[in-house]
Amino acid sequence: MNPANLLQQVAFIKEIDKLKYIQRKTKLFNSDRLENDAEHSWHLAMMTIVLAEHSDKPIDVLKVVKMVLIHDIVEIDAGDTFIYDTTKNHTNTEEELLAAKRIFGLLPTAQAEEFIAVWEEFEAGETDEAKFAKAMDRFEPLLQNTSNNGGTWAEFDVPYQKVYDKKKAIKQGSESIWNYAENLINESVEKGILRKESE
Amino acid sequence: MNPANLLQQVAFIKEIDKLKYIQRKTKLFNSDRLENDAEHSWHLAMMTIVLAEHSDKPIDVLKVVKMVLIHDIVEIDAGDTFIYDTTKNHTNTEEELLAAKRIFGLLPTAQAEEFIAVWEEFEAGETDEAKFAKAMDRFEPLLQNTSNNGGTWAEFDVPYQKVYDKKKAIKQGSESIWNYAENLINESVEKGILRKESE
Repeated sequence: MNPANLLQQVAFIKEIDKLKYIQRKTKLFNSDRLENDAEHSWHLAMMTIVLAEHSDKPIDVLKVVKMVLIHDIVEIDAGDTFIYDTTKNHTNTEEELLAAKRIFGLLPTAQAEEFIAVWEEFEAGETDEAKFAKAMDRFEPLLQNTSNNGGTWAEFDVPYQKVYDKKKAIKQGSESIWNYAENLINESVEKGILRKESE
Repeated sequence: MNPANLLQQVAFIKEIDKLKYIQRKTKLFNSDRLENDAEHSWHLAMMTIVLAEHSDKPIDVLKVVKMVLIHDIVEIDAGDTFIYDTTKNHTNTEEELLAAKRIFGLLPTAQAEEFIAVWEEFEAGETDEAKFAKAMDRFEPLLQNTSNNGGTWAEFDVPYQKVYDKKKAIKQGSESIWNYAENLINESVEKGILRKESE
């Protein structure tokens, strides 16, 4: 324990309050109110703890929780990129890396390096922890959109195949959650809240 | 892993979305917008991860993170009780216990029992994990009020001694965070944003 670290840590704790102002495109369950990044991150952390048993691989749950709690903090500087945006790629941008260095850089050096590494591991999506964290990040808006009459799919006219391709990342983390998710997507087409182009 | 558990877990995940509507009395940093319980819980989880090194006792960080993520979920049914409310006691009420049983009871039995036990451990405040979790829960609004010109202290005319007595719980979790917090409280009196009755 180093009391000198505390001042830097408090500066970081104050700075990340701004995450509560970053609006997502998706809305709360059965609601018209947009979700913000802090609420979203809390929900993913809860989902991680509740659903960890469904991971196909053994995972370090605390590591996954850290990932989902911090995964959107870079958006304080870089803004939210809509997953179905066709003009901007959602993958790890230069802008997001600069944001990670500035914001996590408020922390004491060793901690800053740890947080940047955890964020980069999430973005790369290659470890078992990152795969499960990404599955949570895809699963929450699926539950939201199906509870909101199509939600962002309807609002932005996103077709079935695009949704399916993005959601398939869930399969990398959990076969059983993917089975459930795939059914939800197919049911959404039957219900008429997700548009499937004719063959 | 039990796929049959998934349906119950999804029902719980949808239900706890309601935490995003529970307004606290405190406001975001440098802001006029009230904080909600989901944002507050996310912030405490981040603070736990960032500040864990300052715990006076070794703690299971994942356990503390679980505590702070779920500690306010009972308020979905029982509502938020303002810490300086003089007419209603904030301690573990019958109403909150019923809420815990209903909401955590949506989960598969073993998980429901685990969550209720974690929540009760937090409320009792006796273990090292619960003491650190409670320290986080007291520290966040202190940082908010001092960034908001007195915040709820000014709004509800809460005097120094009441603030001091409530915040002293921080000392149970961390001497070094308490040293910092005690200074902040005393500085607030000097700045005129916290009222100290004359002797």
